[in-house]
Amino acid sequence: MTAPRGPLRVALLGFGTVGASVARVLVERPELAGRVHLTHIFNRDVARKRTAWVPSSTTWTDDVDELFAAGPDVVVEVIGGLDPVGGWVRRALQQGIAVVTANKVLLAAQGPELLHLAATHGTQIRFEAAVGGGVPLIHGVREGLAGDILTGVAGILNGTSNYVLSRMADGADQPMSAVLDEARRLGYAEADPSADIDGDDAGAKLVVLAGIAFRRHLRLSDIPRRSIRPISGADFRYARRLGCTIRQIAMVEASGDGFHAFVGPALVLRGSNFGLNMGANNVVTIVGRYGGESSFSGAGAGGPATAVAVVSDLLALAQRQREHGEEWLPGTLVPPPARPYYLRFVVRDRPGILAAIAAALADQGINLDAVLQEPGYPKEALPFVITVEACAEAPLRAAMHAIGSADFHAEPPLALPILLGDEHPRARS
Amino acid sequence: MTAPRGPLRVALLGFGTVGASVARVLVERPELAGRVHLTHIFNRDVARKRTAWVPSSTTWTDDVDELFAAGPDVVVEVIGGLDPVGGWVRRALQQGIAVVTANKVLLAAQGPELLHLAATHGTQIRFEAAVGGGVPLIHGVREGLAGDILTGVAGILNGTSNYVLSRMADGADQPMSAVLDEARRLGYAEADPSADIDGDDAGAKLVVLAGIAFRRHLRLSDIPRRSIRPISGADFRYARRLGCTIRQIAMVEASGDGFHAFVGPALVLRGSNFGLNMGANNVVTIVGRYGGESSFSGAGAGGPATAVAVVSDLLALAQRQREHGEEWLPGTLVPPPARPYYLRFVVRDRPGILAAIAAALADQGINLDAVLQEPGYPKEALPFVITVEACAEAPLRAAMHAIGSADFHAEPPLALPILLGDEHPRARS
Repeated sequence: MTAPRGPLRVALLGFGTVGASVARVLVERPELAGRVHLTHIFNRDVARKRTAWVPSSTTWTDDVDELFAAGPDVVVEVIGGLDPVGGWVRRALQQGIAVVTANKVLLAAQGPELLHLAATHGTQIRFEAAVGGGVPLIHGVREGLAGDILTGVAGILNGTSNYVLSRMADGADQPMSAVLDEARRLGYAEADPSADIDGDDAGAKLVVLAGIAFRRHLRLSDIPRRSIRPISGADFRYARRLGCTIRQIAMVEASGDGFHAFVGPALVLRGSNFGLNMGANNVVTIVGRYGGESSFSGAGAGGPATAVAVVSDLLALAQRQREHGEEWLPGTLVPPPARPYYLRFVVRDRPGILAAIAAALADQGINLDAVLQEPGYPKEALPFVITVEACAEAPLRAAMHAIGSADFHAEPPLALPILLGDEHPRARS
Repeated sequence: MTAPRGPLRVALLGFGTVGASVARVLVERPELAGRVHLTHIFNRDVARKRTAWVPSSTTWTDDVDELFAAGPDVVVEVIGGLDPVGGWVRRALQQGIAVVTANKVLLAAQGPELLHLAATHGTQIRFEAAVGGGVPLIHGVREGLAGDILTGVAGILNGTSNYVLSRMADGADQPMSAVLDEARRLGYAEADPSADIDGDDAGAKLVVLAGIAFRRHLRLSDIPRRSIRPISGADFRYARRLGCTIRQIAMVEASGDGFHAFVGPALVLRGSNFGLNMGANNVVTIVGRYGGESSFSGAGAGGPATAVAVVSDLLALAQRQREHGEEWLPGTLVPPPARPYYLRFVVRDRPGILAAIAAALADQGINLDAVLQEPGYPKEALPFVITVEACAEAPLRAAMHAIGSADFHAEPPLALPILLGDEHPRARS
């Protein structure tokens, strides 16, 4: 990008919740007019979207060619998805137009190519809004922690899952479906929440964070993602007996020449940063060799918070002529370290079940730590929990597979990692 | 600063804990050699400081003129204090040399002049290390939240005070002097901890944060600073009965055309971000009109964490040719909003004391909320607590002044603000 002489001419792709919020921040902050000018708004069915509060100097269009023909300095992409948006982002970069995007799915899939394309054409792609909404993670990590050698990133990156799990932990013993209905009514969950609760959303954000922190690209499809769907009220009661609660955690840590990564429900200490994170908030902890742990938290989503991130990127573009190109080289995933696990079974009770499970674990060399069984459950669907000492994941999965083939299960058995070292309890000096 | 063609030539002023850590990070990260080269180290009595692990390509000197004569691209100032360091910083900027500094005292006193000097001479002064050690606050706020309109900043900015208060809250009922001795042994407190526990250190950092967040310069001498020295074990017991604990809080909030600011001990909810912050950790919450609350936490001090901040600033300088000059215009302090207060008295007990105190508060139109008196204290030094409903500070101080002139006090009475709205409890959805 060559240095624009007047304000940065910005074209907005998408006028949904985030796009409208971006336009509103720019309208409500006239002091930015000398630096950023919104020249075009693109949306399908644009007549329906047009609003009176956007200045008449902004052109509305549903023709993306018209937008490109105007030669903007920056394209802000807040539509989402891979297609057709990926093509438009590449087209912009190939024309030397800078891109600001909130699109973690596109970045997770094509981040290395897009960064390379930007560098080749002397422009930039910025994406503060893609992870953590209004939490200034990307600037904080990429610039504020540039002096460190980062070793790990762990966080709660999906507000919907955290809303659901922290509401279930409140103890009202609502099933997840009821809490999801409530979340939809409050705007914290979409009609189909699969991407949120099954881990794809957090996984895509984790790929972006790993890119920023390590300059390595992990393939989303290689990162183990586990759904929070099987978590029940009984799990929260058992977790509480262990001093823990349950959260959807996304984490990646450097390990030798590779990285181990995980997205899914895990036990975390109730008094930890993660255990204390309530509602739709996001929280991320970065660990560096020199600086130790730094945490960032705040609103992970929502139009205004995400718009702040977009506008911050626009101001960065308006201010600087050039940044060094960033490259994400391919990263290799390795198995996680040995960890303790929480194993929950719901069985049709009869003698010999515990012996069978213990034998299957012993076959894999896994040591039991504790057996927990709370009273008050029916014999035909009796939940109980076994915690095991730190073990590698492969034998644990092998044991769970063997146990799962037995005929006494009323529900499929569940294994959750217990993250005691990684989630950074607050209560420590 | 003109764009350096090779690596940035860096001269280090000061080889104490932070300076040595900066040098060590640069030595241990050879991949940075293409961007940053440490050419000079200045220290008094330099022969005593010279160490074998610094490469021989770095010149050691105790002659600051020799350092300036070499024409470095950047001077890193990690000595601290106003004099003679302020003169050296100005000299560098006047020569167009960029400055990276950890010196919050200098910035609080002369920030506007130094920023102006840098802009006038086409160079920069950067100070990520001045606040929050390794927590990337400055980059996060200045760049990551640039898109927002910030309305408030509140934090725990002094690790020593937080160590002392969080240790006292543990309940072992140690006097502050004993905890301070322990903190000194562990390296969390200096021989003379006055600047830390009396609020000058947090106050200087607050001035820097206000500059970054609001582009306004508040005079440190105008910011009310109260010492944590009067806080006793009894205060923690009474605070706990109110669901609170006590922390040294530094806060500034926009209020009309001005700002209200405060540094000192305050009651905060035990389950809040601030109440949960333990040991020497720092935590800062930023509130923006669009993005809501964002929090940052991490190691607030220490050589390696602070060195990360310095090196991050160096890498930012190595990467960008120019930044827009930042200006801090004079800011006006206004009185704080009405707040509830915690009033603690230690009296030689006799009839009529409560009536006298209640009358003095009523004279100022202040309503009592609760009276707390725990058993087990001696009659000749009996601590008890009155909480009052939200009131302005001036009448509260007038009432406390009137009450303080009575003859029944065994210790001076104490008034602490109760910050329930501002410290952002975590347990909320």
